[in-house]
Amino acid sequence: MTYQPPVRDYAFILKDLLQLERYANLPAFADASIDVVEQILDEAARFTSEVLAPLNSVGDKQGCHWSPDFTVTTPKGFKEAYRQLVDGGWPGLGADPAYGGQGLPHVVNLAFSEMSSAANMAFSMYPGLTHGAYSAILAGGTQEQKDLYLPKLAAFQWGGTMNLTEPHCGTDLGLLRTKAVPAGDGTYKISGQKIWISGGEQDLTDNIIHLVLARIEGAPAGTRGISLFIVPKFIPDADGNPGVRNSVKCLGLEEKMGIHGNATCVIGHEEATGWLIGEENRGLSIMFVMMNEARIGVGMQGLAQAEAAYQAAAAFAKDRLQGRSLTGPKNPDGPADPIIVHPDIRRMLMDARAIIEGGRAFLFWTALHGDLAHASPDEAVRQKGADYMALLTPVVKAFLTDRGFLVCSDAMQVHGGAGFTEHFPVSQYLRDVRIALIYEGTNGVQALDLVGRKLAVDGGRAVMTFFAELDAFVDENAAEAMTPFTAPLAKAKAELQEATLWLMQNGLANPDNAGAASTDYLHLFGLTALAYMWALAAQTAQAKIAAGATDPIYAQKLTVGRYYMERILPETGGHLAKLKTGAELMMALPAEAF
Amino acid sequence: MTYQPPVRDYAFILKDLLQLERYANLPAFADASIDVVEQILDEAARFTSEVLAPLNSVGDKQGCHWSPDFTVTTPKGFKEAYRQLVDGGWPGLGADPAYGGQGLPHVVNLAFSEMSSAANMAFSMYPGLTHGAYSAILAGGTQEQKDLYLPKLAAFQWGGTMNLTEPHCGTDLGLLRTKAVPAGDGTYKISGQKIWISGGEQDLTDNIIHLVLARIEGAPAGTRGISLFIVPKFIPDADGNPGVRNSVKCLGLEEKMGIHGNATCVIGHEEATGWLIGEENRGLSIMFVMMNEARIGVGMQGLAQAEAAYQAAAAFAKDRLQGRSLTGPKNPDGPADPIIVHPDIRRMLMDARAIIEGGRAFLFWTALHGDLAHASPDEAVRQKGADYMALLTPVVKAFLTDRGFLVCSDAMQVHGGAGFTEHFPVSQYLRDVRIALIYEGTNGVQALDLVGRKLAVDGGRAVMTFFAELDAFVDENAAEAMTPFTAPLAKAKAELQEATLWLMQNGLANPDNAGAASTDYLHLFGLTALAYMWALAAQTAQAKIAAGATDPIYAQKLTVGRYYMERILPETGGHLAKLKTGAELMMALPAEAF
Repeated sequence: MTYQPPVRDYAFILKDLLQLERYANLPAFADASIDVVEQILDEAARFTSEVLAPLNSVGDKQGCHWSPDFTVTTPKGFKEAYRQLVDGGWPGLGADPAYGGQGLPHVVNLAFSEMSSAANMAFSMYPGLTHGAYSAILAGGTQEQKDLYLPKLAAFQWGGTMNLTEPHCGTDLGLLRTKAVPAGDGTYKISGQKIWISGGEQDLTDNIIHLVLARIEGAPAGTRGISLFIVPKFIPDADGNPGVRNSVKCLGLEEKMGIHGNATCVIGHEEATGWLIGEENRGLSIMFVMMNEARIGVGMQGLAQAEAAYQAAAAFAKDRLQGRSLTGPKNPDGPADPIIVHPDIRRMLMDARAIIEGGRAFLFWTALHGDLAHASPDEAVRQKGADYMALLTPVVKAFLTDRGFLVCSDAMQVHGGAGFTEHFPVSQYLRDVRIALIYEGTNGVQALDLVGRKLAVDGGRAVMTFFAELDAFVDENAAEAMTPFTAPLAKAKAELQEATLWLMQNGLANPDNAGAASTDYLHLFGLTALAYMWALAAQTAQAKIAAGATDPIYAQKLTVGRYYMERILPETGGHLAKLKTGAELMMALPAEAF
Repeated sequence: MTYQPPVRDYAFILKDLLQLERYANLPAFADASIDVVEQILDEAARFTSEVLAPLNSVGDKQGCHWSPDFTVTTPKGFKEAYRQLVDGGWPGLGADPAYGGQGLPHVVNLAFSEMSSAANMAFSMYPGLTHGAYSAILAGGTQEQKDLYLPKLAAFQWGGTMNLTEPHCGTDLGLLRTKAVPAGDGTYKISGQKIWISGGEQDLTDNIIHLVLARIEGAPAGTRGISLFIVPKFIPDADGNPGVRNSVKCLGLEEKMGIHGNATCVIGHEEATGWLIGEENRGLSIMFVMMNEARIGVGMQGLAQAEAAYQAAAAFAKDRLQGRSLTGPKNPDGPADPIIVHPDIRRMLMDARAIIEGGRAFLFWTALHGDLAHASPDEAVRQKGADYMALLTPVVKAFLTDRGFLVCSDAMQVHGGAGFTEHFPVSQYLRDVRIALIYEGTNGVQALDLVGRKLAVDGGRAVMTFFAELDAFVDENAAEAMTPFTAPLAKAKAELQEATLWLMQNGLANPDNAGAASTDYLHLFGLTALAYMWALAAQTAQAKIAAGATDPIYAQKLTVGRYYMERILPETGGHLAKLKTGAELMMALPAEAF
């Protein structure tokens, strides 16, 4: 069983639920008529399932190899697949037409990214990080820098990386030691060691553009003295082609639990030549452009691995004959029934669908707000889009990866003993997805970002708008057929609001209360957001059915949506009860007691 | 940071909570005075932490190797460590003195097993399965079979295995095809292929005794035609020494996500000579002696890996400097505070302790009932012990492994990016522990065993006794100091009772309702059982403190216990709400819709 991209669900979300055609008047959307989008997605499905998916296990088993000449060899087949990726025109999908891109809405590109990631997470991280570097230079670079780097990055002709972490600092970037010394010619000499650099070296692209955080000599300590630099592996010559080899080297690779096909590098900068991007000491703000995009992408990875794992589990459950249904044989002529007849197997498959389909709607709905934040002519829509993106990015990242990991684990469980062997694909999905809970800011950091920063911005405008939107939806959908969706949604929203109020009342008095509540609050938020998505899906499906649509997907959405409300949403109560207990017991023991 | 056995917690559980000295009048306990037990545990701590723990990563990285001559080489150092295990006299700890054992209570042996498993799960599975084979022959063998095999197995001089699974059947043993043909001399010729046989071949012992399920020619189909056979690798000669090589061979090893140091074998029987154990066609009942013991052992493994992972996480959290406390610097002279100051890090460490320490008490409390089921002179105590063992075995197995896996995942999360690298031990703990949710009956099978069989046995006597014990405890501990423990316990017990009633009312009408509720019911049960354990621990600690004890463990037990009640137990409500929704939505979609 190889991964099959869920193109039908993309169509449901993009056409029916988000109704993309409403935005045909906006620049980015003008070239993205639904017909065009569907064609793109069909081709993307072919490319990812036929070219990338077959290399997933190869990458896991072979891994990347480092040589003492500081080169890295990617797994067999990756180079050819990368060539096909570039030649197929996939790189430019979401890039600015000014730099050779097709300028499609991010929400469309995201579908392609999800398919790529589900088919081969380790492979798709190479272009993923490249797109991040593209976005950072687009946001903070000079016109000269943009002209020099963006066309190459947009075309994935050159690779891009994020050089943040150092051995002694990751989350706390204020501690970083990599230093930058002005060379007198407008460039800087960058020296220091970076670790855990995904795609920091590889054999897929002609050049690699490192975006490097460093401290300019004499700059303030802490986060207010950090600048961002472009450090190309080969310094572009006068024609913009790779020229002199820069003194930035891969000193080794990390052995990891998963994503073996992606090179996780130790990168040494020895007076490497770098170019400042943006202002001195303001590097973090540009890096966060890249980081926020990456966080949405990581949430997507959690979902993507969950989808791939679910598909493997569903196929196994329909194929494996073992035991009889509790209500009498369903395959009486066979030696046993397929295990999908057992309720506990169904539970895991239905849980997976409720999380994946609801999570996908949430991901795309959020990304659409990101598109509107840039593209809408209406200032109120732009503001709401920007507010939602800021508020929801940590929820997308942490909730979808935490739950995606559990879906992968359940998918292994459906396989029984077979799942623990490397003969079936699900061990790789579980091992690969685990990093998504950690990188680009651990899920705990996301939770703290949500409660400590995002909630309070502009007097809580974003979260108030979100609550008002949910209230309005419940009010406007008072028909009895919607009650199984609106009643649980209203209850979850009330619990989330109660938790928000608790945070406002208790988080300021003792900031540890906010920290102690953060992860439960984020999960309560994610559960409520998915409840809203399922209510939207139900409204959409009911309207379609009322209009005569017979595609079984609509009835299935109503079933899976009600399952979500009854079988997953009741977890909100536990989160609320936990978070309201505060920090006291959590912090009571002295450190030595651990 | 290497694993340090939690000897202080064993002392708290065995001496203070279970008060082992109460049983000094019973045969197995007579030689196990608390002083002797503490000496044994101290020595066990040294052996497991100094000999077994250093080989854990070696085993993971090297794995086992199969040769075309059908031999298997275990990782470097395992052979010498196994020799030390045998020479140290550890094997006989729990074995019958009639066969060379020391005859200590199972509950004492379990502490040694937990330390071994935490130090090196893959290694400790070799003696673990051997002890299972010992128990099966003790339960079902003839005196001649006992005399021949038990001394060798009790001394771990020979290894033992369980040969159950075949490529097309695992959970559903009724489908098995391995056949046994009477040879006319009282022996049988066994032919067939078995898979996933832990320790099926190795280089640690002089001989390997396979316990093999097979169908005697002409026996009924299904589970009523399955017999159990002893198939030695080398057929014992007249002196009981390994003689003629039997035609049972390891045909290859499985590649797995974890426990690489344990050889997971494909075993081919080609007219291998076997001896029937017990009656024809009654093999499953003896195998279940072995299986039930193994299930308790697997629950222990979940706990053991959680403990080891927690220790690694706690050490990392105290060592790693990153960021500042939300309430002001705690390490003002350093570049940053240790991450243990952050509430969300504490949350994960406290969750781990609440589950591990409560789970350990539950494991030992249950095992003590198992000992009393055999050793007590009081028939009522024996019956209660046997009832509890039967009822609680699936809860111990599934709850402790499901939660142990989550603890290992949180321990990785505490490590941040470091945890995903194989440079730190926590990836191995997470990969190793994952099998414990699957083998010896998946956790879903445990849940079905609980709701479909164990609840109803003898008119529900076991569960009624359990509820009555909890009620009595709450009544007898009405003092205000105990309210933070008894009030949540009473609430959880009421929810569990409500769920039990729901199952009685709805499970018979539609068996799928029982299946649909099973996993949530098992978790509700496990959460309630741990609440009882924490209430017992609190009662114990309060009595100790009142009597003047100053060891900080008692105050810590009160803190962690209250944390459990406030921060973990609220999950019961979600499980109750979910399970009461029944099977309808879960089973609504046709199989083709997945």
